[in-house]
Amino acid sequence: MGNRGKLTVVKIGGNVIDKPQELERFLEDFARIEGAKLLVHGGGALASAMLRDMGVEPQMVGGRRITDADTLKVVTMVYAGWINKDIVARLQSLGCNAAGFSGADGNIVPAVKRPSVPVDFGYVGDIEPEKIDSALIEKILEEGITPVFCPITHDGQGSLLNTNADTIASGLASALSVKYDVSLIYCFEKKGVLSDPDNDDSVIPTMCRKDYEKLKKSGSIKDGMIAKLENVFFALEHGVMEVSIKLADELLRDGGTILKL
Amino acid sequence: MGNRGKLTVVKIGGNVIDKPQELERFLEDFARIEGAKLLVHGGGALASAMLRDMGVEPQMVGGRRITDADTLKVVTMVYAGWINKDIVARLQSLGCNAAGFSGADGNIVPAVKRPSVPVDFGYVGDIEPEKIDSALIEKILEEGITPVFCPITHDGQGSLLNTNADTIASGLASALSVKYDVSLIYCFEKKGVLSDPDNDDSVIPTMCRKDYEKLKKSGSIKDGMIAKLENVFFALEHGVMEVSIKLADELLRDGGTILKL
Repeated sequence: MGNRGKLTVVKIGGNVIDKPQELERFLEDFARIEGAKLLVHGGGALASAMLRDMGVEPQMVGGRRITDADTLKVVTMVYAGWINKDIVARLQSLGCNAAGFSGADGNIVPAVKRPSVPVDFGYVGDIEPEKIDSALIEKILEEGITPVFCPITHDGQGSLLNTNADTIASGLASALSVKYDVSLIYCFEKKGVLSDPDNDDSVIPTMCRKDYEKLKKSGSIKDGMIAKLENVFFALEHGVMEVSIKLADELLRDGGTILKL
Repeated sequence: MGNRGKLTVVKIGGNVIDKPQELERFLEDFARIEGAKLLVHGGGALASAMLRDMGVEPQMVGGRRITDADTLKVVTMVYAGWINKDIVARLQSLGCNAAGFSGADGNIVPAVKRPSVPVDFGYVGDIEPEKIDSALIEKILEEGITPVFCPITHDGQGSLLNTNADTIASGLASALSVKYDVSLIYCFEKKGVLSDPDNDDSVIPTMCRKDYEKLKKSGSIKDGMIAKLENVFFALEHGVMEVSIKLADELLRDGGTILKL
């Protein structure tokens, strides 16, 4: 175990991707991370704008978007096409030898279409973390290449699938823990996990699963943060050394919420 | 030299990509090619449709499209996003372990922005075949992975560039000739190089550079076919063993035009 390498897995959210200057500053910081690293990016508002332009009506169930065939086409274009390649080209210009991947490429992140019962979300995929091809990612990292993953996977039967980027980051970090000491950093537009969602400065500095369960019960933590924290604790329970949730702008600085088991 | 592997490089054009059934049949044939192989795909009508939907007016000079910033975004979305990942997912379902790449990924195909004089074509890139990272492609091929290239490259300074797919295929085939015995096949919607553009059955079975120069002078070969044949002879002059131009439907069959030096 003495010779394990260090790997930093960073997830960057759509809210930052939508702001060119913030994205550029974030990528400059990301390029500066020493040693092996891997980036997972989310979507952003461009897909919604494209859907509007194409006249595709958003279909929502319980506040969540249904990915029909047209929507899948647009999110694949935006996530795997523009956002992914734009980030790769920018990182290349910053001296970071990046290469973009969807889960379909090299079958690195296989997924299954979410069951259509009780709600048919359409072309939405759930990854199978134990099937991630960590050996192939390791070879890519050993070439000095920084993989950049977009939130698109596939079912192995010819269909692409829209997939949650936080879950991909957690799955990749977990799978790579077999070979690396992995740090996982979720970067977004808030300073960390907030004890009061309406107070941006109410950052919880450290949190373990017990704290999380308590705060979830009390209602302080809800909605999207619950899903994010489930991904965090999955990673910690599957060998990831440390996880933090922080402002994209503070990637290289201390701060945010540090999560422990 | 006795132990050189065989590599088949195939280019598939936009006219085939636009027809789902023809594309599926082509990919089934492509997946059946034995040994190391690599696919380069072109664009297709989807990008034009997207540009219309987004209200981007096509700007043409001398019959050629100008790639402004909005157009670059759309072609990157369509080529690197939907077309590339759709092909990768389909090939995966056909038992072919494909992985999609733009020229920016891993900096495999560096390019330079075309000079703005005499005509500023915008974000259009010309590749530098001698700078293609053939060693990295070789490692990918040795993993049993089939690379699928879209016609997007980058300038190394953060900008993506729209690039001719025929030229990328020719450049990749040439660069890989150092290590492999390369066959290059251009698949499109015609039966081969025609001596009479108005007669689909006037296929020229074999052609050398001398024949080509004669037919160009006489006006039998013109427009897009001249550019395609320049790419063909570049490849032949840079170590590619054989080149053919044929109907996509006849990928695994004899036929079409066989090109020689």
